[in-house]
Amino acid sequence: MDKRIVFSGSGGQGVITAAIILAEAAAVYETNLNAVQTQSYGPEARGGATRADVIISEAPIHHPKVINPNILICLTQTAYNKYAGILRPGGLMLTDSKFVKIDFKVDARQVELNMYLAVMEKIGKPIVFNICMLGALLELTGLVKPDSIMKVLKDKIPPDFMAMNQEALETGIQLVRRIATN
Amino acid sequence: MDKRIVFSGSGGQGVITAAIILAEAAAVYETNLNAVQTQSYGPEARGGATRADVIISEAPIHHPKVINPNILICLTQTAYNKYAGILRPGGLMLTDSKFVKIDFKVDARQVELNMYLAVMEKIGKPIVFNICMLGALLELTGLVKPDSIMKVLKDKIPPDFMAMNQEALETGIQLVRRIATN
Repeated sequence: MDKRIVFSGSGGQGVITAAIILAEAAAVYETNLNAVQTQSYGPEARGGATRADVIISEAPIHHPKVINPNILICLTQTAYNKYAGILRPGGLMLTDSKFVKIDFKVDARQVELNMYLAVMEKIGKPIVFNICMLGALLELTGLVKPDSIMKVLKDKIPPDFMAMNQEALETGIQLVRRIATN
Repeated sequence: MDKRIVFSGSGGQGVITAAIILAEAAAVYETNLNAVQTQSYGPEARGGATRADVIISEAPIHHPKVINPNILICLTQTAYNKYAGILRPGGLMLTDSKFVKIDFKVDARQVELNMYLAVMEKIGKPIVFNICMLGALLELTGLVKPDSIMKVLKDKIPPDFMAMNQEALETGIQLVRRIATN
């Protein structure tokens, strides 16, 4: 079945980069998966929420725009307020505890994680916040293997930055494992 | 009228980044423009040509995928061979002289520029090849103002890198002005 994912947040949080990395990991490093990655910018692009869509499917993808995602990630309150309503019933919502206060229940699995704080405590570099978020997302969903993400990163970033990104990915994975065993 | 642009090349040439920068420049820093930016990855993503699409329009954009662009940029021979046929009759094709040998005529304005060589001679950093290409594209088309590109870059890159990117953009603009006066 298609996986329809919407990443949302603010410009500097790397949500578009995360979407591109996930789409490439799926299509290039997993077997038999296609992926489409899209951003739309309208008048709301000025100062509003950044949004990046990914569809992953075993079949060719004809309609690249996500209307109702089954997976929604919100990294700011503005993004949460704007997009919470588009999540499909029964879907998964992942939010960052520092940036988003969940003030209404949606018919979904709601996972709040302290991803930003964990990155700052362990690594001290906000630039890998998005990679930590991808780690959490993979552990929650099994969308692609963590190793596929690392292969994409290897093509995109200098070798010196690989260890920091590996640690960020692992930090996200561990945050989910911790709530799972609580 | 809609502007439909396809950037194509290989993964390391920054074509996806260029597409994102152009789309953001149009939607955020120009008046009354909407933009959609898409990449599709199928089985051909493994080792084939990278492709990134941008649509810029004054109206809302409902179909984010470009079928036949009116502007096509090809930065590798593989990309040229694969995508030359999708350009709309009467459109614009921009290629890099080092990487693409034009071996058949299409019904289009064909502009071959030594963008890569110019970047390496003037700046010596291949990482800004894509910004030089954007400069050439803007000078050929007037899609957005160069200043709008610089505003997007200011949000995305460290201050130390701004001068190099400005020089790359200017290099692309000058390459087009030179052929125009020959």
